Formats: sequence, structure tokens, C-alpha cells
Amino acid sequence: MIDIPGTPGTLTGLVLRISQCVFAAGSISYMVTSGGFFSFTAFCYLIAAMGLQVIWSFGLAILDTFALVRKKTLLSPVLVSLFVVGDWVTSTLSLAGASSSAGITVLYFGDLGSCSFEAECWKYQLSVALAFLCWITIAVSSLTTLWLLASA
Amino acid sequence: MIDIPGTPGTLTGLVLRISQCVFAAGSISYMVTSGGFFSFTAFCYLIAAMGLQVIWSFGLAILDTFALVRKKTLLSPVLVSLFVVGDWVTSTLSLAGASSSAGITVLYFGDLGSCSFEAECWKYQLSVALAFLCWITIAVSSLTTLWLLASA
Repeated sequence: MIDIPGTPGTLTGLVLRISQCVFAAGSISYMVTSGGFFSFTAFCYLIAAMGLQVIWSFGLAILDTFALVRKKTLLSPVLVSLFVVGDWVTSTLSLAGASSSAGITVLYFGDLGSCSFEAECWKYQLSVALAFLCWITIAVSSLTTLWLLASA
Repeated sequence: MIDIPGTPGTLTGLVLRISQCVFAAGSISYMVTSGGFFSFTAFCYLIAAMGLQVIWSFGLAILDTFALVRKKTLLSPVLVSLFVVGDWVTSTLSLAGASSSAGITVLYFGDLGSCSFEAECWKYQLSVALAFLCWITIAVSSLTTLWLLASA
């Protein structure tokens, strides 16, 4: 199997996983610390999607670290298939969560004139922005793993 | 190149492209015929994303028909690369459009108790549902073309 940046079990792969964790955790923390998130279904869904992303990416970060330390590869077809399915499910859920929450924040910030939740407003926006950043990193991973599987 | 269902230039590929066109056009028509869509940024974005999808899928449907009639294949690496990029861009935009609009419809139907736009309400919902169906068909195409490219 050819070695593409972001390949599981490599340093770039580990960096991708860690950035996914950081962005997803950041998105959750800003959303959760804003008081009124639970009255919006889209925001609750965003937290769930980002929570799943943190769990998935943290698990794979540990696996990458193990592979790097023990100098093993993680490129058996079964493992790569697992990565493809997990990356694909989480990247789809992350994009859907970020987009639906973006629809709400644009509605309140743009369409309805201004956000009437004062202090919470920028937290919503920052949470959505971090969710999109998280999606970009997981999209890179899902493309990389699918390419590895198909070219095996 | 191996022949996967949905491969460009085959009958299943043509059926996929036509269903993408039908779902996207349906989504646009329900949204456009509902009076108040232009006051929601997310709905306007959905129409734009579905419009791009109709153009892309209609073009490829014509290409598939041409290939079937002339018994030619559309599997040169350059062509498949073009399909991959186009399918990926439109599928990402379609999912983002459908999700952001879903966030709005769930907000009005669920969070705020009931949709206060009477006759328009079910049109918004139907438009969003058709957009998600469109995304499913374009996601199949984008996975197929990426697999073809990587396994070439």
C-alpha cells in the first residue's frame, strides 16, 4: 500500500486525529457553556455529533500512537475498512451537525436582524466554526482511508 | 477498471444521474413555490446547491446516454478525476444545504412549537426531504467514482 499523508499509523495520521479531537472538544465546550443551547434541536444534535467524533478520533489517536511506538503498520484491509466506515459516518454526521447549526445561527444573526441572546451569541458562532474545522480534518481522513482501501 | 454499479457510462450510472436530477428539481420546485423562502438564508442556499446539482447531474446524464448509445466507456483517468471532483463538491454542498434547511424546519416545527406559515409548512419539509434523498444518490455516485479512480 502506498503511503499517503494522513495514513493511519503515521505521524501525519496522528496529527490529523489530534486536531479532530481538539476541534470537536472545542466546539462542544463553547456550545455547552452557552446557556440556552438545549432549546435548539440543531445545537443538541451538533453536540452529539461532535461527541461521537471525539470518541472516534481519540480512540484512533491512541491506536496511531501505539503503532508508532511499536513500529507496526495499521494497513491490513480489515482495519482500513473499519477506518473507512468510521471516518465516513463521523464526517457525514459532523457536516450535517455543523450545517444545521449554521442555519440557525445565520437565521438569528442575519435573517432576524440580530442575535437576541446577548452573551451567548458569539459562543454559538465559535462552536459552529470549530465544528466546520473539525469536519475539514475528518474529511481529509475519510478520503485518505478510502483511497488506501480502494488502491490496496 | 472493474465495473461497479453506478459506474459512469453504464445504465445504472444513468439511472443514478436521472434520480439526482429529479430529486434536486423536486426540492427546488417545492421550495420556490412556497412563498416565504427568500427570508431564510438557509433556504436560499438550498436552492442554489440543488440548482448546481441539477446542472451537474443533467450534464452527466447526457454524457452517460451518449456513451451508452455509442457503446463507449467513460473511464479514462482524466474523465474519472473530473467526475470525482464534481461529485464530491456537489455532494458536500447538497448535504450542507439539506442539513441547514433541516435545522430551520426542525426549529419551527419542533422547538418553537408549530410552523406559523400555514400552507407553506409542509412544502418546506418536503423540499428538505427531497434534498436529503438527492444527497443519498449523489453520495453513491461520489463513492463509486472515487473508488474507480483509486483502483485504476
